[in-house]
Amino acid sequence: MTTKMFASDNNSGVHPLILEAIVQANQGHVAAYGNDPYTAEAIQKFKAHFGEACEVAFVFNGTGANVTGLKAMVRSHQAIICTDGAHINSDEGGAPEGFIGGKLLTSPSADGKLTISQIERQLHHIGNPQRSQPKVVSISQCTELGTVYTIDEIKEITRFAHENGLYVHMDGARLSNAAAHLGCSFAEMTVDAGIDMLAFGGTKNGLMMGEAVVCFNPELASEITYIRKQGMQLGSKMRFLAVQFDRLLTNDLWLDNARSANHMAQLLAEGLVKFPEITLSQPVQSNAIFALLPKAQIQHLQKKHSFALWNEEKDEIRLVTSFDTEKEDIAHFLADVKNSFS
Amino acid sequence: MTTKMFASDNNSGVHPLILEAIVQANQGHVAAYGNDPYTAEAIQKFKAHFGEACEVAFVFNGTGANVTGLKAMVRSHQAIICTDGAHINSDEGGAPEGFIGGKLLTSPSADGKLTISQIERQLHHIGNPQRSQPKVVSISQCTELGTVYTIDEIKEITRFAHENGLYVHMDGARLSNAAAHLGCSFAEMTVDAGIDMLAFGGTKNGLMMGEAVVCFNPELASEITYIRKQGMQLGSKMRFLAVQFDRLLTNDLWLDNARSANHMAQLLAEGLVKFPEITLSQPVQSNAIFALLPKAQIQHLQKKHSFALWNEEKDEIRLVTSFDTEKEDIAHFLADVKNSFS
Amino acid sequence: MTTKMFASDNNSGVHPLILEAIVQANQGHVAAYGNDPYTAEAIQKFKAHFGEACEVAFVFNGTGANVTGLKAMVRSHQAIICTDGAHINSDEGGAPEGFIGGKLLTSPSADGKLTISQIERQLHHIGNPQRSQPKVVSISQCTELGTVYTIDEIKEITRFAHENGLYVHMDGARLSNAAAHLGCSFAEMTVDAGIDMLAFGGTKNGLMMGEAVVCFNPELASEITYIRKQGMQLGSKMRFLAVQFDRLLTNDLWLDNARSANHMAQLLAEGLVKFPEITLSQPVQSNAIFALLPKAQIQHLQKKHSFALWNEEKDEIRLVTSFDTEKEDIAHFLADVKNSFS
Amino acid sequence: MTTKMFASDNNSGVHPLILEAIVQANQGHVAAYGNDPYTAEAIQKFKAHFGEACEVAFVFNGTGANVTGLKAMVRSHQAIICTDGAHINSDEGGAPEGFIGGKLLTSPSADGKLTISQIERQLHHIGNPQRSQPKVVSISQCTELGTVYTIDEIKEITRFAHENGLYVHMDGARLSNAAAHLGCSFAEMTVDAGIDMLAFGGTKNGLMMGEAVVCFNPELASEITYIRKQGMQLGSKMRFLAVQFDRLLTNDLWLDNARSANHMAQLLAEGLVKFPEITLSQPVQSNAIFALLPKAQIQHLQKKHSFALWNEEKDEIRLVTSFDTEKEDIAHFLADVKNSFS
Repeated sequence: MTTKMFASDNNSGVHPLILEAIVQANQGHVAAYGNDPYTAEAIQKFKAHFGEACEVAFVFNGTGANVTGLKAMVRSHQAIICTDGAHINSDEGGAPEGFIGGKLLTSPSADGKLTISQIERQLHHIGNPQRSQPKVVSISQCTELGTVYTIDEIKEITRFAHENGLYVHMDGARLSNAAAHLGCSFAEMTVDAGIDMLAFGGTKNGLMMGEAVVCFNPELASEITYIRKQGMQLGSKMRFLAVQFDRLLTNDLWLDNARSANHMAQLLAEGLVKFPEITLSQPVQSNAIFALLPKAQIQHLQKKHSFALWNEEKDEIRLVTSFDTEKEDIAHFLADVKNSFS
Repeated sequence: MTTKMFASDNNSGVHPLILEAIVQANQGHVAAYGNDPYTAEAIQKFKAHFGEACEVAFVFNGTGANVTGLKAMVRSHQAIICTDGAHINSDEGGAPEGFIGGKLLTSPSADGKLTISQIERQLHHIGNPQRSQPKVVSISQCTELGTVYTIDEIKEITRFAHENGLYVHMDGARLSNAAAHLGCSFAEMTVDAGIDMLAFGGTKNGLMMGEAVVCFNPELASEITYIRKQGMQLGSKMRFLAVQFDRLLTNDLWLDNARSANHMAQLLAEGLVKFPEITLSQPVQSNAIFALLPKAQIQHLQKKHSFALWNEEKDEIRLVTSFDTEKEDIAHFLADVKNSFS
Repeated sequence: MTTKMFASDNNSGVHPLILEAIVQANQGHVAAYGNDPYTAEAIQKFKAHFGEACEVAFVFNGTGANVTGLKAMVRSHQAIICTDGAHINSDEGGAPEGFIGGKLLTSPSADGKLTISQIERQLHHIGNPQRSQPKVVSISQCTELGTVYTIDEIKEITRFAHENGLYVHMDGARLSNAAAHLGCSFAEMTVDAGIDMLAFGGTKNGLMMGEAVVCFNPELASEITYIRKQGMQLGSKMRFLAVQFDRLLTNDLWLDNARSANHMAQLLAEGLVKFPEITLSQPVQSNAIFALLPKAQIQHLQKKHSFALWNEEKDEIRLVTSFDTEKEDIAHFLADVKNSFS
Repeated sequence: MTTKMFASDNNSGVHPLILEAIVQANQGHVAAYGNDPYTAEAIQKFKAHFGEACEVAFVFNGTGANVTGLKAMVRSHQAIICTDGAHINSDEGGAPEGFIGGKLLTSPSADGKLTISQIERQLHHIGNPQRSQPKVVSISQCTELGTVYTIDEIKEITRFAHENGLYVHMDGARLSNAAAHLGCSFAEMTVDAGIDMLAFGGTKNGLMMGEAVVCFNPELASEITYIRKQGMQLGSKMRFLAVQFDRLLTNDLWLDNARSANHMAQLLAEGLVKFPEITLSQPVQSNAIFALLPKAQIQHLQKKHSFALWNEEKDEIRLVTSFDTEKEDIAHFLADVKNSFS
């Protein structure tokens, strides 16, 4: 067993079945840029999950998926409403502003979720050209704090948004973990709940690399292929992105991976809260744990383990499990926590 | 043997040794975003080829490599001088304009090369704010017409450019093919010839995907990492890009691949010119053949083969060989050419 | 009499009646940003000329008018077809690329006009995401070479464009001069001829400053107000832009000014061609003269007069008359031409 | 006497002496785009106030001045630190994001001022490419809440910023009002206090239109002229912008105007606080008054007066005086306040 890290689920490698699919696709020549049978088949897998009407475009990474989808939804004088901790606001190096030329309107969020009243507060200046005009609400499922919107919460947001002329985008970098937590299908959380555009995550759930822009709203679909290319997200040997998704969406591999990661997070959280000095700062609903530890213990653990010091002032750390995290990894970490107190 | 295509070298798959390197890198967890030992080692391989002083950043594709490098070299009110057939002008979906916000100043070119006098003509409005100010010359090695600049030609361009306050960028999507043709090292064509910034191509020479921004001019290096991220070109599981380059630059795999592709192009060209009705429209200096055929023959060949109708008015086609093109592929194609005349 | 320049019609000052209108508008307080009665009235004047259905937005300068209108017509992955001498391509400092993030597809033009076949040649890659997708044809009336499209030529372009899914933009920086030349109304050359969006010029025809975006296509109208603000073209004390247009469009002041400038250009051209050594390089259809002179004469004239050396290699100069150019200015210049030969 | 509005100082017209200067400049022809003696002289006036070393560029409006200056200071992957109520964040229609392609990092501010600790909190992610990299601190003098930084406060900010590798930009749309309040020169608040780049406001202090970018840091100066043009802020008949500044900076007209507006604001504030039901929500340090009134009184006053309902939830209004506000205007308003209570 090699040591697993808890810094992020992108520290993991590739699931063996995904890698096998890549190897098998390495046969002869096929057309480039997605005009190949592998890509066609992978798109069919998405349609099986999300319905025939969706449009699918594979891209390289999560930032690419978010920005490509968002750029199809807004013009530069318009704005995207999100939490201030949203990945698009805090972790994409200004890619939305740089590529779209528009503004993000952010609200702080204690649990990572955006509320109707926060959205509503951003609508006070509709029609005033001095203000960037809100056009999209973007939510993350799971959120950046590991929490998961219920299907009803999503529906409430999409209903309010649509009533107010706004589209809804979902950053689904960890959508599989959310589905595993809710015990629902992808469609129930997305297209059936009114989502217009989805960034579907693969990399954090066992792929080598690859995310997908999935568009449910036909009025937003026609330009994605051009936006993807201008956004430098069109892969030439597309088959090697496509087959990863094909395999992920076959025989519930996506679900097995996500369930395993979520389960490991539960085990880890249960182990942590047995220490009276440790408190969870967020409910554990997916594969991330946010916990408050004494500073000395954090420093002790940092010597042997890789994880994020999420909020230095509050002594809050983030631990993320992966599809390949094993019980031994959890036990090993918890043993070191115990050592840190002795 | 599976049939090979001549539409583009990105119709090929992954060289087996590259794929093997990927598989071997799939061990346990490593830090994401390039902070891993695989990436460090791959960068060392670049330094061995290009000198210790270069800065290297891996990106997903050629458009990403070109635009990331160029954005480090110009501001939006500045301009990039190139041929009108340059990939950055004709095949990147407006990515340079979209991400940089600047202008390309183009000149037509019969052989794909940019000349000093063409560059000079673009300098008439230096200091006039009504005009985008030239700041970069971008040349492609090999050119988009399969031709190869001599080292002296490159030096002449970089000397003229530097004397006029311009940087020089090289689109090296097929740099290995050029090196194989010239029988020189990478460094001789680039850093030693005065190039400031290089887009080093991997995908077309046997990689699954991956290009590298290589910066030789220290004044241009410091912001590439931020530009790459904002340009949505920062891969999280970076090791899987890095190991491909590591392997490519080991034991001359890059050279073997390029030589083989070039050699197949020579064989194909030699076969074609035996038909009196067929003329080469460009010298064959790398892995691309541009040829003029009677329309009837083109239509006959299109039924069985995949290649580009480069210029419909002139009945000019483009055939591209790949690292995995074999003599049987050439023979097969030439046999069909012969059939087309019978 | 103060000496007039022939360098550009923007070397002139403000027509006295325009200045008087400005002075009279300087009464008390009115709402800012165009929500004032002066602006409302000026817009009515436009509607009287261009029809009730048009939308009008006042901006500061010609670049602002062109780019604001164009940005309402294209997205960044789309392209604008124009001549390479078009003001938007050659004299706006990269503003279209910078603010729109898209590409201009240019063709050379001997007389400043764009032809159907040039437009057609840019349509070969529709649907190919590697290429910026043509969406707008932009023509200048008058052209940058002083020539004037006939109404039939405009209709032919708009018909072809609309049949091919393209909008048509008109850079009308000197629209009044064109109308004076054709003896037609503004509407006949624009809305009635199928133009979708117009940049209506004021500054070169006697205003202090001010241009207008005039939108005839209702599908393009709704976002101009936001694009204008984001494009930094929304004036706060708008009345002082508006009253200039109001006065210009009252009692044919626009026509008197343009006719006078055109007439002076005719006189000047007639005087020039009497010298056998001087040739006109463009027909004189508005207020600009393009002429070929011996180099010695050009140098002689440059000592006393201000005009543009349009093409140094060809010894071609450009002379532009203004609303306030007088017969004495023409006589003065011609006398100096005569002196230059003696 | 015509009724004055309190909605904004841009509801006022042009100071008679400014208008006179415009009329006098309307003599004959001069070179366009700022290459004229009027512009040269106006720039000299700025140098007299701000020192010989400054660079000055006239633009059309405040958004243009802010964005032109800021674009010279940041690249798109960098960020601008400001308050969330900063004009650049809240009232420029997304122009900074649209034209720069970068991010604003905002903090809430009760009094309109940015604090060192707020700036410091934005510096946690220096060197992390996932985050837009802070490069500029932008402060407004006066602030958008009518408050005025002391010279020491400005120096503290510039010192902290420079120590941390940040430039400091000042939005001086109402700089004259601040100088009048502090009783200091322009230089003491700006160049002498460490400011790198200034947007100098004219429009709100009696100009017809016109703002100036004033650059004090030589490393930021060289590209402003190109940025201004690409930003559509280069006026052709520049003399009519320039002479306004020339006159404003002559014989203390700027100071007389600002003092008068500030004085009227004091009178108005003094009158308001005599009503026990009315509270000032900000100290009155310039020409703006923020006051809390009962909702009934607000509604009564709205019938006869024009002013901003700043915060509907808090029943907070904003009243702005202008250079031409007179005692009678104040008395008239206060009489109506009194009536509203009876």
